[in-house]
Amino acid sequence: MKEISRVLGIDPGLERTGWAIAEKNENSKTALIASGLIETSSALSLQERLDKIYCEIKTLAEKYAPSQAAVEEIYFSKKAVSQRSTTYARGVIILALHRAKIPLSEYNPRTVKSFVSGNGNADKNQMTKAVSLIFSLKEPLTPDDVSDAAAIAFVHLRNSGFAALIEKGKKR
Amino acid sequence: MKEISRVLGIDPGLERTGWAIAEKNENSKTALIASGLIETSSALSLQERLDKIYCEIKTLAEKYAPSQAAVEEIYFSKKAVSQRSTTYARGVIILALHRAKIPLSEYNPRTVKSFVSGNGNADKNQMTKAVSLIFSLKEPLTPDDVSDAAAIAFVHLRNSGFAALIEKGKKR
Repeated sequence: MKEISRVLGIDPGLERTGWAIAEKNENSKTALIASGLIETSSALSLQERLDKIYCEIKTLAEKYAPSQAAVEEIYFSKKAVSQRSTTYARGVIILALHRAKIPLSEYNPRTVKSFVSGNGNADKNQMTKAVSLIFSLKEPLTPDDVSDAAAIAFVHLRNSGFAALIEKGKKR
Repeated sequence: MKEISRVLGIDPGLERTGWAIAEKNENSKTALIASGLIETSSALSLQERLDKIYCEIKTLAEKYAPSQAAVEEIYFSKKAVSQRSTTYARGVIILALHRAKIPLSEYNPRTVKSFVSGNGNADKNQMTKAVSLIFSLKEPLTPDDVSDAAAIAFVHLRNSGFAALIEKGKKR
């Protein structure tokens, strides 16, 4: 696995999709370059909402040119309707990234929590605080969707770093 | 609601997506113009599979220029993993149709069965036979996904015809 330098982290949702661009600087420190929220109004049709998410992810991919992207694995503790909405959003996000030729990795939500906060059961408040510390932010990222996207980007940056180190070790 | 003449019926699935183009001819008879199956191998990544479905729906929209499209409403009796796969496929199909400016309608599976076969609980075999009768086909459409797509197209053609008649009546 090649070490990557810039990651787009995404927390998908039909109503709110959080995103964050994180990268490693020269000292291998992780920096938050940009973050934001894609919101789609429930006054729009499902078609229009999916189209908006697709287009905005495409624009982010073009604007920031991340080398890789990461999302949390889907899990089914949520309500059926919410699951379906999230899966629709994930579907078009996966498509937009594929068409932009950006490889996508998935992480278990517990792994993300554990990696970022040291606690696989961390609540939203603890996660937001941990993300602020990691990226040395003066203000916490809000809403949770954005903070979660930054957490996922961080995990993927670090994980690919480890994987690259291990591979380097193997080649010696 | 304007009466429509050509409908793309779709039975979405990640592994197999059935499609059918049906239209009304001069005598208001319904004819099956074309039908087929979009198959994606499980050897492909999810990204590649969604991309294939998206591209093939886009191609169908361009080739046959249907004025409208119809799918069955999603229902949650299936397994979670199967639901998720189907929802992913539906998401990119919805997006492809929206970008091709083709309005999409949804029908309850029971409504489709009842309308086509006279029985809201019809099994797959009964539905395939009913579809053969409706379109005067010499050979049944296989697999079920294709036959179901033709059934949905038929229901939408007929339904829009009724809706147009009702509207016409109102305007008198």
